[in-house]
Amino acid sequence: MGIDRPKPTIHFGLVGYKFMGKAHSNALQRANMFFELPAQINLSVLCGRNEENVKAAAMKFGWDGYETSWENLVRREDIDVIDITTPSNAHKEIAIAAAESKKHIFCEKPLALNVKDAREMLAVAIKNNIKHQVGFNYRFAPAVALAKQIIDIGRLGEIHHFRGTYLQDWLVDPDFPAAWRTDKTVAGSGAHGDLGAHVIDLAHYLVGDIKAVTGINKTFVKERPEVLGMTGLTATKTIDARMVPVTVDDASLFLCEFENGALGSFEATRFAMGRKNAMAFEINGSKGSIRFEFERMNELQYFCGQDEPGLQGFRLIQASEGIHPYAGHWWPVGHVLGYEHTFVHEMVEFITCITNDKPCIPDFYDGMKCCQVLDAVDLSIAERAWVNIGDI
Amino acid sequence: MGIDRPKPTIHFGLVGYKFMGKAHSNALQRANMFFELPAQINLSVLCGRNEENVKAAAMKFGWDGYETSWENLVRREDIDVIDITTPSNAHKEIAIAAAESKKHIFCEKPLALNVKDAREMLAVAIKNNIKHQVGFNYRFAPAVALAKQIIDIGRLGEIHHFRGTYLQDWLVDPDFPAAWRTDKTVAGSGAHGDLGAHVIDLAHYLVGDIKAVTGINKTFVKERPEVLGMTGLTATKTIDARMVPVTVDDASLFLCEFENGALGSFEATRFAMGRKNAMAFEINGSKGSIRFEFERMNELQYFCGQDEPGLQGFRLIQASEGIHPYAGHWWPVGHVLGYEHTFVHEMVEFITCITNDKPCIPDFYDGMKCCQVLDAVDLSIAERAWVNIGDI
Amino acid sequence: MGIDRPKPTIHFGLVGYKFMGKAHSNALQRANMFFELPAQINLSVLCGRNEENVKAAAMKFGWDGYETSWENLVRREDIDVIDITTPSNAHKEIAIAAAESKKHIFCEKPLALNVKDAREMLAVAIKNNIKHQVGFNYRFAPAVALAKQIIDIGRLGEIHHFRGTYLQDWLVDPDFPAAWRTDKTVAGSGAHGDLGAHVIDLAHYLVGDIKAVTGINKTFVKERPEVLGMTGLTATKTIDARMVPVTVDDASLFLCEFENGALGSFEATRFAMGRKNAMAFEINGSKGSIRFEFERMNELQYFCGQDEPGLQGFRLIQASEGIHPYAGHWWPVGHVLGYEHTFVHEMVEFITCITNDKPCIPDFYDGMKCCQVLDAVDLSIAERAWVNIGDI
Amino acid sequence: MGIDRPKPTIHFGLVGYKFMGKAHSNALQRANMFFELPAQINLSVLCGRNEENVKAAAMKFGWDGYETSWENLVRREDIDVIDITTPSNAHKEIAIAAAESKKHIFCEKPLALNVKDAREMLAVAIKNNIKHQVGFNYRFAPAVALAKQIIDIGRLGEIHHFRGTYLQDWLVDPDFPAAWRTDKTVAGSGAHGDLGAHVIDLAHYLVGDIKAVTGINKTFVKERPEVLGMTGLTATKTIDARMVPVTVDDASLFLCEFENGALGSFEATRFAMGRKNAMAFEINGSKGSIRFEFERMNELQYFCGQDEPGLQGFRLIQASEGIHPYAGHWWPVGHVLGYEHTFVHEMVEFITCITNDKPCIPDFYDGMKCCQVLDAVDLSIAERAWVNIGDI
Repeated sequence: MGIDRPKPTIHFGLVGYKFMGKAHSNALQRANMFFELPAQINLSVLCGRNEENVKAAAMKFGWDGYETSWENLVRREDIDVIDITTPSNAHKEIAIAAAESKKHIFCEKPLALNVKDAREMLAVAIKNNIKHQVGFNYRFAPAVALAKQIIDIGRLGEIHHFRGTYLQDWLVDPDFPAAWRTDKTVAGSGAHGDLGAHVIDLAHYLVGDIKAVTGINKTFVKERPEVLGMTGLTATKTIDARMVPVTVDDASLFLCEFENGALGSFEATRFAMGRKNAMAFEINGSKGSIRFEFERMNELQYFCGQDEPGLQGFRLIQASEGIHPYAGHWWPVGHVLGYEHTFVHEMVEFITCITNDKPCIPDFYDGMKCCQVLDAVDLSIAERAWVNIGDI
Repeated sequence: MGIDRPKPTIHFGLVGYKFMGKAHSNALQRANMFFELPAQINLSVLCGRNEENVKAAAMKFGWDGYETSWENLVRREDIDVIDITTPSNAHKEIAIAAAESKKHIFCEKPLALNVKDAREMLAVAIKNNIKHQVGFNYRFAPAVALAKQIIDIGRLGEIHHFRGTYLQDWLVDPDFPAAWRTDKTVAGSGAHGDLGAHVIDLAHYLVGDIKAVTGINKTFVKERPEVLGMTGLTATKTIDARMVPVTVDDASLFLCEFENGALGSFEATRFAMGRKNAMAFEINGSKGSIRFEFERMNELQYFCGQDEPGLQGFRLIQASEGIHPYAGHWWPVGHVLGYEHTFVHEMVEFITCITNDKPCIPDFYDGMKCCQVLDAVDLSIAERAWVNIGDI
Repeated sequence: MGIDRPKPTIHFGLVGYKFMGKAHSNALQRANMFFELPAQINLSVLCGRNEENVKAAAMKFGWDGYETSWENLVRREDIDVIDITTPSNAHKEIAIAAAESKKHIFCEKPLALNVKDAREMLAVAIKNNIKHQVGFNYRFAPAVALAKQIIDIGRLGEIHHFRGTYLQDWLVDPDFPAAWRTDKTVAGSGAHGDLGAHVIDLAHYLVGDIKAVTGINKTFVKERPEVLGMTGLTATKTIDARMVPVTVDDASLFLCEFENGALGSFEATRFAMGRKNAMAFEINGSKGSIRFEFERMNELQYFCGQDEPGLQGFRLIQASEGIHPYAGHWWPVGHVLGYEHTFVHEMVEFITCITNDKPCIPDFYDGMKCCQVLDAVDLSIAERAWVNIGDI
Repeated sequence: MGIDRPKPTIHFGLVGYKFMGKAHSNALQRANMFFELPAQINLSVLCGRNEENVKAAAMKFGWDGYETSWENLVRREDIDVIDITTPSNAHKEIAIAAAESKKHIFCEKPLALNVKDAREMLAVAIKNNIKHQVGFNYRFAPAVALAKQIIDIGRLGEIHHFRGTYLQDWLVDPDFPAAWRTDKTVAGSGAHGDLGAHVIDLAHYLVGDIKAVTGINKTFVKERPEVLGMTGLTATKTIDARMVPVTVDDASLFLCEFENGALGSFEATRFAMGRKNAMAFEINGSKGSIRFEFERMNELQYFCGQDEPGLQGFRLIQASEGIHPYAGHWWPVGHVLGYEHTFVHEMVEFITCITNDKPCIPDFYDGMKCCQVLDAVDLSIAERAWVNIGDI
């Protein structure tokens, strides 16, 4: 049936090699192995500031080479995609430079420190006609993608309620040290942008646009011991450590009304003792409901209001059947997937959109919308009043 | 060991014989049988407006006699306690008359249609030096009482978070008829006062006073078919029924800050498809957490931050051991209790406080505090702003 | 509409006033109040050997009078029903005397110490043409009755598997004292007849007759301290107590093949640490499956193989809707029932069968069938071989 | 601290490229990336009979080369390890040839078609002094490894009960075609050896040796349509397909006594409608209990009998903390792992044992022990009697 064209190869340059850098490196390799991609992914260059560390990481994670300057990286002709996994405050500068160099961009969430920066990034991406995607990986859990299908075919009817929470507990201990994630200038916000951003994106994805918000937040522990060189989530306090102010929220909650009339509640916190990575949501519609908890990510609960009276109940769907989104590429049903698979799936979609010249979902526009809500909530907190999203 | 004094007898007059009237009648009988009360309870008079119905109910529920006028009832000399289970708009008048007649009062929740009325009821009760209790029955589930014990002995430490929901779905169907519960002049509010009141009371009980609130509510279905003579939750639409406006909220949500600095979120709805009587709360503190879901009311989840590292996890306590509150009076562990037992327990406490001349808990003060929060939330919704509880 | 005949009254005489006597007393009263029975139940005579205790219990439990001799009781002309809740070794003698006196009989399970006695009881009951029922109360949990309906309308198809367990832990502590339940001459067997009997009956009820069995059992703790006067499940060891041999099984397991070809597994134990009253079963058929756990007795899980592919999953049915068996007589959906309600329901059925002259279900025949399986399992253990039920 | 020796490289030759071949290929790559192994793993040669397919798989899965003859493969000097993932009937011949060629061997379970073959494989492995491991991958779920730690430090005390089940439903449909897994000459047995083998191994690992067994099994569907070229679990019937007899069990159950006196029950089935990959076990000891369900593989339930009275309950441990076995090499707590991670962990242990010259666990001895129990159960079924493991 015509000529068998060789697959194109897409060369990645990845900035950052910590938690997210590792997750992306793994995802790119798994995508090649478990999916029939329209293009071959090449792990070309890993980029980080510390040469010794980035070199070791490049070898460990299977990259062909490394760079210590992202400015160099984005100018390299042999790179097609810039994948950004740095702390949030570096997203904008790198993304704009990459876009101006006509690289496609995959950027971790939250897209930017504020909606103004996010809008600028989006504008530059559009102007340069590149593909751009944001790392809202939870969309790509099979159970969440199944939830989207259920909603799209009308099985929930008109949506009345969304309630989403993202609960962790790693900051409850006041001796847990300060980190970039507790520094507003680097992270933008605390639980709000780190955890809440995911829930906001899922609300956008599954319910629709948000109309207005009102919120509250709190920093329960006002200062924490400094630890030099700490990275990630694992660190212990140094004796006699200098105390550093915590400039981000430990917890952030808000209520909203959606454009379609549904009511929503959101909570993100790092102070929910015993809750480890408890991202969960429930959506109630006029015909049915769905529930999801990330720590049991292979399960989707679905209540079908059309089931025979007397036999109705939330169905516990083991969302790992071959018929479910993405699941058929892995193992037989019930041979469950984990956190890292969400990254593989988002990369599969990204590669497919690049190769087939289709718009990515979620893209910088979605990333910007999330920042808009994050900012609106913060403004509502500052003003102790409802804020219309349209005014942000 | 001294003289064996005969037990006093406390004579009850109960106003109302529907859902709550049945629950109270049952509870009074069960209390006599399963507990060693300091007084014998006598089911003396059942009161309702329809003579035929109240007579039949009195016989069915084991009452000695009946009345068709609460005004007569409260004046009867042979009655010690007036127990009020009418729709909310009748609470005030009956309670004030009963108090003026020096009867002890048990009143269903919400105590009144608004905090002003509740304050008046409280004042009259205090002036007449009677015992008064409010029907926040969920406090008396063994698992909830156990939660209170856990908090009181400091096992949760400083409280950071309360999140409570009360989800039902019986109004999702737009053909479900109007009822007194959808009429603001009778019920005061909708899900807010009916369901939310329970969650607010539990927050007061377990966490403490609320400082400020902001909320949102909605009436998803604006009018419903009228059904003559419908009572309770079971009814079907008449063909060509007249449409009646729904004047209460279908759902009500709010955020709060507690006086002790904890953050709270609350949701009450009758539109959560698939959720039947899903009253649930979670409390996170600096040392531990607890979780409770009413539909699994015999279970309390408790996370103990002092457990050995690596072996920590929410404990699923089957709160029906002899050592647990109230449970030892019933059956062996695991032989689970149900909804109606909460009413038995509250009556046991009420009788005990009357006999021993101790203050009841929760009393009209607690009922008033709940109304204060309900009103503050409604005001915050009207003004689209935060409202301080102290200003109500 | 004809003459309004007055309801007949059925006079009960209850033998035993401990755990089961209390449960039955409560059930008879609740049945009168919550159900529209065809006859009025009268709690006439409570019977026990210790006059002081039985008198106190009669007053507490609402009985009109008491007897200290069951021989007298069964001869009384004013009694219609003898309800037997004594330890198992007294069932036979009382039941036969009652039947010969033409009393209807409700007898707790296991019906007898062995199938021979059970057959004799059944024969005498049939000969005297009385109504007879056995206290397999778990059949009457709404969720279990719903399971029966689901099976009867063919929703599971051909049954392939039954797996049932009844796990408790109250004998794990070797210091827990000996009791009548650990004495073979009184109890007949240990976990096997006490707990296993319930599971066997449910298997008969839901799946059908058993064809052959093979089993194993064990007494983990061979002797226990004696406590004088201990009753029920609550006791503590006396210092220097005399040690008494345990003559019953602590745990008993068996496999079976049903007559219809299904495979079954059964386990009853008092040594499952942390398991309080964990009676649970699962049934898998060619079209669907059901699961039930008593400690969450208001829930039934149902898997429907006809649900749309991709949306299949066990439905968590909150089996307390008005449409569910028995549930509509109590509270609104989700206002959960407890252990004691199963006794009310079995009494409602018993009264109805007596009044309407219909055969009771389950009756002494079902009780005998259960004893047959219990004996067959014990024989299989003794012979270390499969035993056909038909040979017992 | 001495010379920094370069890491050795271990060259793998993998036989088989279907379900297990894919899982092993993935695991070897992940092990290199996520763990600090004492040796580098090299994916040298993939082996399969169909050249086109194995070549494509080798490219896809990242192997350096391929072979179409396992006889050639085991003789290659550049290969250190032979990894066997073929159907069970090929294990013996390949393993013996590999051992004679002094290759280390990783072999999938069940080790052999019967214990005689397994003993021969073990003897040859020992004679040739090679490392040998069997693919009981479920041991390497973090939650299962944690369960082992809990038992080893005595937290369960004396073990009384083991109950294990492995429930699937992919053969319920009688139209599902015959496959190598339904052919006794290729698979050895059905659910018994495929699923039951895992549960038996876990019982050995966590409880100890089995003393005697009695069982039952069944083939519910006696013949199935043939499909040419079908592999794995996904196939659809051809119209007018020839019917092929099913020569293995659809379900297999047995009871056992362990050498330490504990009682055990086991069930493996492919006919449990709605159950997808429900491998689960519970162990009850004198001091505590544990429970595990594979479909929620990141969770371990642990009941600690030493917890404060009144606050005891099964703890739901999210077994993905850095402190838990293997988990710290992956993601932060609660960022859950999946099925495939168990293979990574078993390979990490295998590589470590090879490099450090330590015995592998589980090895061919464990594989043989599992076959011994499988055979004993089948013999007990044939003879309808208990069989002592020592007699097999």
